[in-house]
Amino acid sequence: MKIAVVGATGLVGTKMLEVLAERNFPVTELIPVASEKSTGKEIEFNGKKWKVVTAETAIAMKPEIALFSAGGSTSLEWAPKFAEAGATVIDNSSAWRMDPTKKLVVPEVNGNTLTNQDKIIANPNCSTIQMVVALYPLHLKYGIKRIVVSTYQSVTGTGKKAVDQLMNERAGIKGEMAYAYTIDMNAIPHIDVFLENGYTKEEMKMVNETKKIMGDESIRVTATTVRIPVMAQYWRMLPA
Amino acid sequence: MKIAVVGATGLVGTKMLEVLAERNFPVTELIPVASEKSTGKEIEFNGKKWKVVTAETAIAMKPEIALFSAGGSTSLEWAPKFAEAGATVIDNSSAWRMDPTKKLVVPEVNGNTLTNQDKIIANPNCSTIQMVVALYPLHLKYGIKRIVVSTYQSVTGTGKKAVDQLMNERAGIKGEMAYAYTIDMNAIPHIDVFLENGYTKEEMKMVNETKKIMGDESIRVTATTVRIPVMAQYWRMLPA
Repeated sequence: MKIAVVGATGLVGTKMLEVLAERNFPVTELIPVASEKSTGKEIEFNGKKWKVVTAETAIAMKPEIALFSAGGSTSLEWAPKFAEAGATVIDNSSAWRMDPTKKLVVPEVNGNTLTNQDKIIANPNCSTIQMVVALYPLHLKYGIKRIVVSTYQSVTGTGKKAVDQLMNERAGIKGEMAYAYTIDMNAIPHIDVFLENGYTKEEMKMVNETKKIMGDESIRVTATTVRIPVMAQYWRMLPA
Repeated sequence: MKIAVVGATGLVGTKMLEVLAERNFPVTELIPVASEKSTGKEIEFNGKKWKVVTAETAIAMKPEIALFSAGGSTSLEWAPKFAEAGATVIDNSSAWRMDPTKKLVVPEVNGNTLTNQDKIIANPNCSTIQMVVALYPLHLKYGIKRIVVSTYQSVTGTGKKAVDQLMNERAGIKGEMAYAYTIDMNAIPHIDVFLENGYTKEEMKMVNETKKIMGDESIRVTATTVRIPVMAQYWRMLPA
């Protein structure tokens, strides 16, 4: 399969390539896509080097699958163009998640709803995914009426700037702040922005995405999402 | 007032003395009580030095109030003896909390239930206290039926050994473990021991103490208590 990875040079894109390799996904041709400042660079994958190209070049190369992880605005602009050129787009951003014409899929829960007609497939928020994988079998068996969830989320989810903030604080170095507060030895109940209803956007993602994935708008969900000073797989993220 | 502090040389006892001073509590005589290995030491309080004595000596000195924070077994053995000698005992351990003949009091919630007959007064678990102070007014106004609570608890609550574990791990030093796992960059949903019903003892304290303090056995409570790498007022706890 000819696979494009849009955002291939970022933290998540790099991880996607790792997982594709780890799982022996049948990639016959890799098309790493990034912004113009990265084009021309080469990325090693499965023992070969692949040139980073722009989105336009990638579309002309007719990928069968395009994995997107380059932010919502990139997905909004480019996913339809990849789809039009025949690719099946799997989008890791929040751009298409709540679009009623797009499916929001966790394979273990509602992968069976996909058809060949689905050309842009949305991938949920990370907190939502873990939760619905655990809850869906219970929902089928007992019928869940209400979910009250609290999260304990790592700084890695915010990105490199947040990891740097935590590592700087641990080392006693003053640096750029990814959060409004010190995160080292702290817990911050504030992920993404606050909305008018008093919940954060991260919390409302858990509320709305859960209903869509489980296919049941009657489930009542309330979430409290909290950032704590932990790092997912921090051994890979520590400065060398 | 003649005040005995049982466990005066410990972390919590030291804090109790700080708060008594801070609030200008009308202490005319302080009786610091500790185990025999500490007797003879002197503790400074309000500009004077006070000799640390044994529990037996303290009882003979007829304190009006005895604040206990020296562990459950000390409270079980000595609180009744202080009470018999005329002291009002306020006990910070879990020894008497669920005893139906003793009141479990959070002043803002059920302080009004106390009478002169109450000679041993129990003080709840720290997580429970904060929660009921917030929830009791809502309960009075709306009638709470169900509480689902998750905690984010500091290592200071475990004691000095846990603070040392965290500080050692942060410094890359191998030392004694207060927890079964690394706590630095981690979150451990395990506080106190696990019970047969699958909850931890800390979680069941939140369940049972809340019902007793709110005076309503019909409230359904479920708790998930989690230790995270934060420290309450860690600036005071850091090694000098």
